[in-house]
Parts: sequence; C-alpha cells; structure tokens
Amino acid sequence: MKMRTAILGWLFAFASTCAIASDPLPSWNDGAAKQRIVAFVEAVTQQGGKDFVPEPERIATFDNDGTLWVEQPLYVQFAFMLDMLRAAAPKHPEWNDNAAFKALAAHDRKALAAMGQKPLLELLGVANSGMTVADYDKAIRDWLKTAQHPKLKRPYTDLVYAPMQELLAYLRANGFKTFIVSGGSVEFMRPWAEAAYGIPPWQIVGSQQDVKFDTRDGKPVLTRGPAFAFIDDGPGKPVGIYRQIGVRPIAAFGNSDGDKEMLEVAAAGEHRNLVLIVHHDDAAREFDYDRASEVGKLDKAWDEAKAKGWIVVSMKSDWKKVFAFEQ
Amino acid sequence: MKMRTAILGWLFAFASTCAIASDPLPSWNDGAAKQRIVAFVEAVTQQGGKDFVPEPERIATFDNDGTLWVEQPLYVQFAFMLDMLRAAAPKHPEWNDNAAFKALAAHDRKALAAMGQKPLLELLGVANSGMTVADYDKAIRDWLKTAQHPKLKRPYTDLVYAPMQELLAYLRANGFKTFIVSGGSVEFMRPWAEAAYGIPPWQIVGSQQDVKFDTRDGKPVLTRGPAFAFIDDGPGKPVGIYRQIGVRPIAAFGNSDGDKEMLEVAAAGEHRNLVLIVHHDDAAREFDYDRASEVGKLDKAWDEAKAKGWIVVSMKSDWKKVFAFEQ
Repeated sequence: MKMRTAILGWLFAFASTCAIASDPLPSWNDGAAKQRIVAFVEAVTQQGGKDFVPEPERIATFDNDGTLWVEQPLYVQFAFMLDMLRAAAPKHPEWNDNAAFKALAAHDRKALAAMGQKPLLELLGVANSGMTVADYDKAIRDWLKTAQHPKLKRPYTDLVYAPMQELLAYLRANGFKTFIVSGGSVEFMRPWAEAAYGIPPWQIVGSQQDVKFDTRDGKPVLTRGPAFAFIDDGPGKPVGIYRQIGVRPIAAFGNSDGDKEMLEVAAAGEHRNLVLIVHHDDAAREFDYDRASEVGKLDKAWDEAKAKGWIVVSMKSDWKKVFAFEQ
Repeated sequence: MKMRTAILGWLFAFASTCAIASDPLPSWNDGAAKQRIVAFVEAVTQQGGKDFVPEPERIATFDNDGTLWVEQPLYVQFAFMLDMLRAAAPKHPEWNDNAAFKALAAHDRKALAAMGQKPLLELLGVANSGMTVADYDKAIRDWLKTAQHPKLKRPYTDLVYAPMQELLAYLRANGFKTFIVSGGSVEFMRPWAEAAYGIPPWQIVGSQQDVKFDTRDGKPVLTRGPAFAFIDDGPGKPVGIYRQIGVRPIAAFGNSDGDKEMLEVAAAGEHRNLVLIVHHDDAAREFDYDRASEVGKLDKAWDEAKAKGWIVVSMKSDWKKVFAFEQ
C-alpha cells in the first residue's frame, strides 16, 4: 500500500507540474486580455468558489467571420457565392440589373456593406434552389480545396486564428461546450469546422436556407428552396442560440455589431461571464480595419465594450501569432 | 515493474469480466430485438470491421412521444397546453368557436387526430404570445411538478420507458451522440430531458415557436410570437435533423407516421443502420393501441418496417419492465 501511495503521489506531483509548466494559450502574449481569460476560467471551474458554474451551463459561443477566421476583403462565404453566382449567371440574365449581384461582381464593399447580407443570401438562394443538400455540400468542399485568399495567398481554411483555436481547446479542457454562432450559412461551416476548431456540425448555429424533404429514385433527399428560413445575425443570434442551444452562454466572442446582441445576452446572465471583442488592428499580419467591419459604419458594440468593461483583444499586441503557419 | 504488470493484468481481466457479466440492456428480454440491437452496436464499433462507423458519424435520433415516454391518452404537451389554454380562455371568448380548442377541451381524440398537431400548436402560440421565454420555461417546470397522468397516476416525468433509457446510455457508452427529434416544442422537453434521458438542451430538435429579441428594463429578453417558425414532424423531421444536427443518423427510433421520414433517412444511408419502431401492445402496463397512434388512422410506417426489415419492438414481450418504478 505504501509503495502504491508513493507512486500515486509522484504521479499527481508530476501532473501538477505539467499543468503549471504548459501554457494553454501559447499564442497569446502575457497581458490583461490573457490574464482576464485565465482568471475567468479558473473562477468558474473552482468547485465551491463563489463564481463556480456547473458544467452543463458552461456554454461558450463564438462568432465565426472576423472572430475565428479572416473576413476581409470579403466574407469567405461571399467569395464562394461570387464564384457560384458567376457560374450560374449565364442562366440568369435578369441579374445584370440586380444591385446585389452587381456590387458583388464589382467587389464594391461599400455598396455591399450598405445593403447587408440579406440580398446576397437571397440571390444565392435563387442560384442553388433545387440542388440537393448533398450536391451543395460537395460544391462547398470542392471550392474550398482550390480557392485562395487574394491577399494572404493561402487556402481559406489556413486562415483561422491560432490564438482562438487555443482558446476553444482551453475552454473545452475546462468543461465548456463550444459553439459557433454565425451570420453565415450553417452548411458553409460544417465541412471544415471540426478540423479547424474541434466543433462538430451539431454545435454550429447559422443562417438557414429553406430545405424540403423529397424523394428521388425512391430515395429520400433534401433539396434547397430559394428562400432563407432564418438569418442568424444581429438580434437573430440570441434567437439562434435559444432555438439550437437552449442555454444562455456565459462566454461570448465577437468582433462587430453582428455580434452585439449575442454579447449582451452573455453579459446579462446571472453567472460571472466573459465577453470579448477581437480588434483587427494588424495590417502586417492580417488587416487593420479597426471598428469599421463594414465600410462606412462604425461598430457600436465597441462603445458598449468600453462602458461595460468587456475585453477588447488587439490582434497586434495581444497575439504572438495570428495564423498557425507563421514561424 | 513485474508487480505493476501483474496488477494491471488483473485489473484488465477484472474489467473484461465486468463487461461480459453486466448486461447493458437489463430491462430487455432476450429475443430478436435485443440481439439485433447488440449486433448492430458491436458491428459499427468494431475497428477494422466491414461495418465500422467512425465516432462523429454515430448519430442516433429518437422520437420522444410514444418512443421515449407515454403519449396516450393525449400527448403530454397537449395536456399542458389544455391547462394553459383553460387558464387563458376567459380572455379569448373567440375560442368557443375554435375547432381545435373545442376538441381539446372535450378530449375528442378523433377530432384532434383528424386535424393534426398544427392548429393546436397555433392556438397555444396565440395563448402565450408576448411571454418571455424565461416565464414560459417556468410555467412548464411548475406544471410538471404537479401534473399527473390520468390513468397511471404518476408525474409525467416518471413515465419514461426504462428500456429506452438503457438503450440511450448503451449507445452513448459506444461513442454515439444521442438526439431527440420530436414533433413537440423544443422548450417543453428541455427542462427534464437531461435527467430523464441524459440528453442536454442542445441535442433536442423540435418544433419552434417564433421568438424575438427585445429589451426590457435595459435587459435583453426573448419573447414568444404567436406563430410557429417550424413544425418538426413527418417530413419536417429530416429537415430538423439537417438544420440542427447536420449528419445523417445511422440509428433512428420512432413509433408512428410522424417518424416515417426520419426512419427512411436513417435507412437510406451508406452505413449499416438500425431502424426501430416501438409497438404499443401492452394494455396492462401502458396502452395497447397497436398501429393506430392517432385515432382512425393506421400508421403506414409499419408496412415499410415489414418490407424493409426494420425492428418492431413489442412492449409486451420485448420489455421486462416498461417503467423504472416497476418492481
């Protein structure tokens, strides 16, 4: 028994040393942002502590575009849509008069920002209406294999933020369930989110195009309709969270006004919470668009962040590296 | 080292013995149904075997009413609705002419069956429109504390099927993710599904009433609208699965035509699958309504079950006990 106790003691000592020695957030510089993240996680996981939160309520929600991966010069999904729309355009001469199509084709970010995501999603809805969801999934996977970011010259799936990947893993290691809550279409994220973020398809909340049950050659299929059933953006995000998660997040991460209401909901809960905004201020490694995530608008969420003491993370000074491929 | 090896060997031997000795489905009688379930689970989890399915694709979907808990003489949610509607009725004199309200108040199962769930859900939608989701959740929890089943004289949450609870746990122990996919409202299941089935709120797919983001006293709230955004029943179930799970189930469990399309989707996948229908043929311990889950209709899924070799489980002969409280 004594021998066994000694071995166990040694094992525990070794495990504790490892825990102290290994930094769960190595791509984060030591600073206020990192310290506050770690302090939050330690507080809500400390059994018997005043801020303890039971595991089923440790829900963390992450915006995707601009929070987990690159969103400039165009949302990646818009780049995909543009290619799909270009391919479909010969069959749709009426699009030559469509404002959304024209702005997309001209990369007119100002016009796109002014109209928001809705008319673009609607256009794409028409373009792929009638496709089975399996064919649509294949189109996304095929596109992701060859498409490259115009400035960073990498496949888009390389352009996920390493510090946020670490944060996702750190939260999960501490009993959190991590969810994506994005304005983008849910099927655009599913093919790669597991590999990129460790998030399975059923923990992704996003905008939803209409789909319909049908039978083809005696087999059940789902086909896409032309309309959107749900836009998971802005005030839609708390609705998406309610519908699909059903538990108020205690941690929420965003970068723009599309995330504002989600961040407010996380901040208004009864538990200690962590609310964080990613600040794009790194022209050298990524982009510097400050608080103008859409051209010609200033994100109001930043004023709220200041007033309520949310964490604003500077990509330039808080992140040792932005992408995993950096040396 | 030798001592340690010996101890480890002994531990492994002990663990294996336990695994063989302990039956994961003790409430199931030995018979074809149980054997086929176990054979399926062993086949899809056998690494290197021809039927092996990787863990992320081990998705199992369960209907709720009549598959996981009692659904007669009324869907439990309808019993709740009836009490809510009765309480709200004085404010809605126009309901006296509403066919759905009249049928519900008269327990007219034939009329209710003929009209389906939709008009009832719509009526309830009107009754609780404007409530915050938090108040609605509290109303459900309060009701469940006191409501009793008219025949079985138990709280409804006691009336979950013990063999299905074991099946859920058995699948999870073998790397499956288990989901509820129900025609009922998602918020009606969330308060008790974790305790009853081990299924967290975000693994419940159900019908969705419209909810809207709003602010009250400076705090963000969600309020219920009068309409339903989504009915997760019949051909709606594969749509709900696509929206919220995003992976085709390889195992699906139902008891009526509301589950038919979900069962078809599970049966049409490329992997080996398990498709099962619960047969209510036990008047003594529960109900015997055979294949008439709605009065005046015969569930067609049973013909398909026969043609395609799906498992039909007899509550009477396949289940040693129906409810956990039985001795």
